[in-house]
Amino acid sequence: MEVRERILKTAEELFMKFGIRSVTMDEIASELGISKKTIYMHFEDKDAIVHEVATFRMSCEQDISEQIWKEAENPIHEVVKEIEMLKTHVAALNPVVIYDLKKYYPKTWAVFQQHKQTIFLDITRRNLQEGVKQGLYRPEINIEVLSRLRMEEIDFAFDQSVFPNNVFNQFEIHQTFIDHFLRGVLTPKGLTVYEQYINTDNN
Amino acid sequence: MEVRERILKTAEELFMKFGIRSVTMDEIASELGISKKTIYMHFEDKDAIVHEVATFRMSCEQDISEQIWKEAENPIHEVVKEIEMLKTHVAALNPVVIYDLKKYYPKTWAVFQQHKQTIFLDITRRNLQEGVKQGLYRPEINIEVLSRLRMEEIDFAFDQSVFPNNVFNQFEIHQTFIDHFLRGVLTPKGLTVYEQYINTDNN
Repeated sequence: MEVRERILKTAEELFMKFGIRSVTMDEIASELGISKKTIYMHFEDKDAIVHEVATFRMSCEQDISEQIWKEAENPIHEVVKEIEMLKTHVAALNPVVIYDLKKYYPKTWAVFQQHKQTIFLDITRRNLQEGVKQGLYRPEINIEVLSRLRMEEIDFAFDQSVFPNNVFNQFEIHQTFIDHFLRGVLTPKGLTVYEQYINTDNN
Repeated sequence: MEVRERILKTAEELFMKFGIRSVTMDEIASELGISKKTIYMHFEDKDAIVHEVATFRMSCEQDISEQIWKEAENPIHEVVKEIEMLKTHVAALNPVVIYDLKKYYPKTWAVFQQHKQTIFLDITRRNLQEGVKQGLYRPEINIEVLSRLRMEEIDFAFDQSVFPNNVFNQFEIHQTFIDHFLRGVLTPKGLTVYEQYINTDNN
């Protein structure tokens, strides 16, 4: 792996564990066994590393979502597979990362929000449209309003002032929201399909 | 009616129509046919009027909610009656009021948030608990997480950056959220009860 990629990979690991704010350039250098000078040859400052780590992560998440979409048997299966994927991702993520991004890296946060309001919103909208088409979701659902609600739920689940990490299990909140969101749009036929997936999951 | 009450009532009407920021003390005085000096005999400044109008409104909303709770046949009926109530209230409310409160009257906004996170949260929690008890809501729902989501939905519905007034119908957003939220917690028995209320409504 190129030095540049190693820096990004290590920085990401440290951020995910400890949040962004508390990780110094010294710690990234020390973890890699290289000098800070070498890091500065590749990145202007920590902001630049944060920005690149974040944009790379978003692009990965998008690829994963497209992969899930292709492999899923139907829109409900897509959601079930997304919950599984989240389980690994959220467990590895210190929620302080989200707080730090929002507060100290507004430029990167804005890109993240933009990504969410375009790419993720499209993915959610497509899921809802396809579910309606297949008779799994109620035909009368307001797709524009509900897809935006789903985007808001993602941010809200990470809100440490409402769901502090030491009281609430982060993954459980995301799972609760997704499960509740899905049930809110299902037809009776959709509910049967969903329950089959869940029960298979538990066995 | 006392002058003091007339001032509050008129201020509230003007705020609801035009938002808070754009209504001046001169306009309130002129609407009442009294002098600004008379207003200042009762209220230190516009902030004081805004604060009192808002706290009075919250207290009214709480009374109405308690009334609905007492009259409702069951928790689903409570929600159905709340939607009906909202229809009148939201129609009369210029969403700029929420924006203005949040931005220019942080002290009043904080009281409103506090009220929501205590009184309204309790009302929602009680509804969910009672619904589970009566077999209308799924026994496994996460009441702590979902009741907080419901609170967030109220703010989110008013978010003009996501649901601008000239594109989205304000009441429709609230209704979509409440309907979707309720369906997400219903048991099959609960769904039958809910659909009976909705169908009766439409006739």
